[in-house]
Amino acid sequence: MRVASGAELVVVPVRHSGAGEVLLWVEVASIFWTERHMLNWEPWAAGRIKRLPMTFGHEVAGRVVAIGPEVHHLRPGVFVSAEGHVFCGFCPPCRSGRAHICENLRILGVDFDGGFADFVVIPERNAWEVDKRVPPDVASIHDPFGNAVHTAFSGDGADELVGATVVVLGCGPIGLFAVGICRAAGARQVLAVEPNEFRQGLAKQMGADAVIDPSKEDPVQSVRTATDGHGAEVVLEMSGVPRVIDQGTRMLAPGGRMSLLGLPSGPVALDLTDQVIFKEARLIGVTGRELFRTWQQMTTLLATGMVDVSPVITHRFPLDRFGEAFDAMASGRSGKVILIP
Amino acid sequence: MRVASGAELVVVPVRHSGAGEVLLWVEVASIFWTERHMLNWEPWAAGRIKRLPMTFGHEVAGRVVAIGPEVHHLRPGVFVSAEGHVFCGFCPPCRSGRAHICENLRILGVDFDGGFADFVVIPERNAWEVDKRVPPDVASIHDPFGNAVHTAFSGDGADELVGATVVVLGCGPIGLFAVGICRAAGARQVLAVEPNEFRQGLAKQMGADAVIDPSKEDPVQSVRTATDGHGAEVVLEMSGVPRVIDQGTRMLAPGGRMSLLGLPSGPVALDLTDQVIFKEARLIGVTGRELFRTWQQMTTLLATGMVDVSPVITHRFPLDRFGEAFDAMASGRSGKVILIP
Amino acid sequence: MRVASGAELVVVPVRHSGAGEVLLWVEVASIFWTERHMLNWEPWAAGRIKRLPMTFGHEVAGRVVAIGPEVHHLRPGVFVSAEGHVFCGFCPPCRSGRAHICENLRILGVDFDGGFADFVVIPERNAWEVDKRVPPDVASIHDPFGNAVHTAFSGDGADELVGATVVVLGCGPIGLFAVGICRAAGARQVLAVEPNEFRQGLAKQMGADAVIDPSKEDPVQSVRTATDGHGAEVVLEMSGVPRVIDQGTRMLAPGGRMSLLGLPSGPVALDLTDQVIFKEARLIGVTGRELFRTWQQMTTLLATGMVDVSPVITHRFPLDRFGEAFDAMASGRSGKVILIP
Amino acid sequence: MRVASGAELVVVPVRHSGAGEVLLWVEVASIFWTERHMLNWEPWAAGRIKRLPMTFGHEVAGRVVAIGPEVHHLRPGVFVSAEGHVFCGFCPPCRSGRAHICENLRILGVDFDGGFADFVVIPERNAWEVDKRVPPDVASIHDPFGNAVHTAFSGDGADELVGATVVVLGCGPIGLFAVGICRAAGARQVLAVEPNEFRQGLAKQMGADAVIDPSKEDPVQSVRTATDGHGAEVVLEMSGVPRVIDQGTRMLAPGGRMSLLGLPSGPVALDLTDQVIFKEARLIGVTGRELFRTWQQMTTLLATGMVDVSPVITHRFPLDRFGEAFDAMASGRSGKVILIP
Repeated sequence: MRVASGAELVVVPVRHSGAGEVLLWVEVASIFWTERHMLNWEPWAAGRIKRLPMTFGHEVAGRVVAIGPEVHHLRPGVFVSAEGHVFCGFCPPCRSGRAHICENLRILGVDFDGGFADFVVIPERNAWEVDKRVPPDVASIHDPFGNAVHTAFSGDGADELVGATVVVLGCGPIGLFAVGICRAAGARQVLAVEPNEFRQGLAKQMGADAVIDPSKEDPVQSVRTATDGHGAEVVLEMSGVPRVIDQGTRMLAPGGRMSLLGLPSGPVALDLTDQVIFKEARLIGVTGRELFRTWQQMTTLLATGMVDVSPVITHRFPLDRFGEAFDAMASGRSGKVILIP
Repeated sequence: MRVASGAELVVVPVRHSGAGEVLLWVEVASIFWTERHMLNWEPWAAGRIKRLPMTFGHEVAGRVVAIGPEVHHLRPGVFVSAEGHVFCGFCPPCRSGRAHICENLRILGVDFDGGFADFVVIPERNAWEVDKRVPPDVASIHDPFGNAVHTAFSGDGADELVGATVVVLGCGPIGLFAVGICRAAGARQVLAVEPNEFRQGLAKQMGADAVIDPSKEDPVQSVRTATDGHGAEVVLEMSGVPRVIDQGTRMLAPGGRMSLLGLPSGPVALDLTDQVIFKEARLIGVTGRELFRTWQQMTTLLATGMVDVSPVITHRFPLDRFGEAFDAMASGRSGKVILIP
Repeated sequence: MRVASGAELVVVPVRHSGAGEVLLWVEVASIFWTERHMLNWEPWAAGRIKRLPMTFGHEVAGRVVAIGPEVHHLRPGVFVSAEGHVFCGFCPPCRSGRAHICENLRILGVDFDGGFADFVVIPERNAWEVDKRVPPDVASIHDPFGNAVHTAFSGDGADELVGATVVVLGCGPIGLFAVGICRAAGARQVLAVEPNEFRQGLAKQMGADAVIDPSKEDPVQSVRTATDGHGAEVVLEMSGVPRVIDQGTRMLAPGGRMSLLGLPSGPVALDLTDQVIFKEARLIGVTGRELFRTWQQMTTLLATGMVDVSPVITHRFPLDRFGEAFDAMASGRSGKVILIP
Repeated sequence: MRVASGAELVVVPVRHSGAGEVLLWVEVASIFWTERHMLNWEPWAAGRIKRLPMTFGHEVAGRVVAIGPEVHHLRPGVFVSAEGHVFCGFCPPCRSGRAHICENLRILGVDFDGGFADFVVIPERNAWEVDKRVPPDVASIHDPFGNAVHTAFSGDGADELVGATVVVLGCGPIGLFAVGICRAAGARQVLAVEPNEFRQGLAKQMGADAVIDPSKEDPVQSVRTATDGHGAEVVLEMSGVPRVIDQGTRMLAPGGRMSLLGLPSGPVALDLTDQVIFKEARLIGVTGRELFRTWQQMTTLLATGMVDVSPVITHRFPLDRFGEAFDAMASGRSGKVILIP
């Protein structure tokens, strides 16, 4: 599949795996806004994509079918999920255990050919062997599930979740995953804020104690009421909407933590004095997943059944019906949409 | 009830609550080894108890019936549980938020009259208002439940529990509570090590994934097998038995944490080089409960039903049958034993 | 001294110390913007001050001359510095070791009579015995020095300072203190940003490696240059100016921490996506001082000479010349201004 | 140089650098007990060394003279210091950012040919580019200096050092480095415990506030006296002597941390109840250095002059006089001994 203000399914040669790389036979992939932005050739995509045509797709799982030289830990036949962030290993963040904010980060399906294809080549160290208890569909959503895990456990980590009131702002797939994760990690109550009725239903299925519809009630007030006026200890911001981010700070209890994963497209005005400084609140930027601590956590959460993500996977399409898949994703009546090559 | 190599139930005058103190009408109390050590007038008790006769009992819940001067937050009628550790508030640990290791700590029912009585006087700040959803029986076991919470969340806290293999060494009441707490906090698997068959059953009821009988199998080997050879990320030591503590270090995964609550009566020989240093393991001493962060965590865990402690409360006696209560505790066929004045 | 759009020095009766309180004979006090806002009867003061006339002054040190009932740790004759934040000890933040963000906080010299007087009454637990090696002048500035210590050690604490590039935005007294503290805590380099020439000189005296004049150079660019393009690991925001706060986020290295102490008077617009989220930066609200961990840290820093604050104390006036003192503070050619009753 | 109950300097072929490897021209190396254990063919060496003859030497710095395939970040001419721990990158500790406790760790000069030679081959990622401000002699001691940094910053890290009393038990080179590091990180006082007079002098040169001679005074009592009876917040154990480790626990203040780097050769008996549990102390195993966060910290400490290690480097020998070098190391009148090939 190649993109240039649109996409088409074409035959391309399979690249050989180079040193330290593995060739995967893709069994399942899933789509995200990243791909939709590229499909629509939005300004971000036009500015970022360096080479056309290019195969896209960054959420992918498949079986190793060939290995390049200097591959020492994987063998053909192993079923793996791809970490889409390729890191250099030598810059200051990489050298201090923060490879996910590598200064030379390259992204699968954005900066080099991705996985909406029969085959894809990735570095061995970006291939995570999938636990046998995790079904293939689920294997393809490690990337966004990892976003949710990393966001939930950011700041002071799980210690802040046990017994806490957690608010999840925005219930796209990542927000929905976060609901289930916070449940599993011992939150006292998980409150989901989401205007879309279909997603409200999914939030309840994922274990939300209450779903707040911001088109019908003031979410700040509702959170205050649900917490006897104290506010929420943890807010996970998945919407990227400036007004919602501002509301998030107003829901926070003194000493609370708001983790920011959603990407606002412009400046966000905040009342820092009353909502952050006097409350000693913390705003924590979050991106990607920790390499590979988050993957270890994901394996536990998914393989042991602590989090059941199946309600979130709402649609499956063969790869050649990718147009329908993107329509489903944009329909407002979907969770995660999966492609089968 | 007064003790001197034994105990008897006697009539004593009710002390008035002084400045900053509240008088409780005791509704429920529970017994622990502390009291048994005093009943048997063991060396520890003989060395520690300064004044006789003395009323003992440090795990107690009751209703405020009178308040002294300078009491500003509690009113008669409120049902509270007692924190048994009375702290000075001015020593270096108190001033840095570690009042539970106060240099001038005094213990209810040990250093001053306790709660195996109709009435007891405690400082207002040692009285924790019990959430209405917590039943009275449970209210009396906040002290040992708090030990378990504090032990489970010691070291790097809940962050280490999510997805971890946790081993609980010794399933007296505190160990049993710990099993339930680690379950609620998202452990991958909780393994209980306990030779007593009755307690093995309780451990399963509290949610242990497996119970290891050290009289029948090598617990170090069993833990290794259950973790594919890696060892447990967290070990909670509740037995105080030197050999078991040594075994605990041998079960630890690299980077693991062993929290020590059980009190060995003599020196403990450890293989620090291989079991602690090369593994970068951590041995964490734990005592009491954090004042009052642990109580906040307890309230959540108990009031929301995240942990159901009812299986552990196996016996109830009226106060005047305290002798039977102590026999039940020592029988090896009990969990927590409760007294009703 | 009493205030109502101005202040005058008057004779008022000395209040007796009540239960848990001590009466201090004030030896030294210092002034801050808090008092100036009251002197000018600005909207904040008009809204906050509940009772007039009132004695103001919250930074004060003196000798205990009388103690009330239920005072057990201090005796007359002891020289103490006052913590101006009076906390309840029973609300959720107090109960979890965060009394400095008490939900019922009352401030000395704002919510009750303060210390610009010969005598002042404060709770015993708000009186910190001053180490004998700390001179009296310095004793009166524990409050703002504590702000600086708490800000510097916020987030992940001193661990982030060792070897770090630290930027201090705004070099009023608290910013100047922060420069010295970060030096003592092992920063690689401390960069001060300050337009006022007099304060630039003080920043150098306190140990700043470089002083950036934002009226002459772009501070974001200057910090980038001084860090080989990586940005600063830690930014301490003391100015409260929205544009400066925005610049602070742009100076941050990936994974960096900006601690916010300065109070902006309106909303602050930030580029969260590029400056916080993709960088996984943290914005940490900071207020007051930790009770009393910060005081322990202060005692070490001041008593051992690790930080020499004497250059910051630029002016001393007898109490009856308070008008000149406020003029000096507002002159732009002062550090800390001290009053001697 | 090859070892078999002794060592000799011989001519060996230079190995080519393979994929991901670099060939260094060794400019400076230093010796440690590791090498002496091998020289004397002690049981540890006999059990560990798999192949003879073998070149030893694990502390080494040199210039890159050739690079193998798949080397992308280093070029010939760059001066680097070698991290001696070669990690797999795929085991659980490696995947969670703890590569220094890799389950498949191989050590330079122990498990494969080391650096007491004109040339040595190491993986590119084990080569750390030396800051230009660090002199060549110092470049060779990154390995033991890193042990000291990692030990000092273990547990809760630098946060525990600022303002703390730190005791360093044993002043071999690593202990001496630790004295300087804790000074730079803002310790209130650093107390060194060391019986050897020569090393006592070095400890003072490195900034120890006091040196305690355990052959003349009781170190536990001396530390108590120096801390007004409270004990030390941090103890760094570098001796590996069981009795000293026991003393270390007795010096600890409530809540204190003892980091264990020295390797006892047998079991160590500890009074866990009184010295660890009731005090809520922590015993932290430490090995190696964090890869490569510790190297970043080292670069700052060494390149900025925050720690001056020159007093510790007491001897320099040409490589062919290695016998004298080992004699000097064992003489008790040396710090670090350096070899120049």
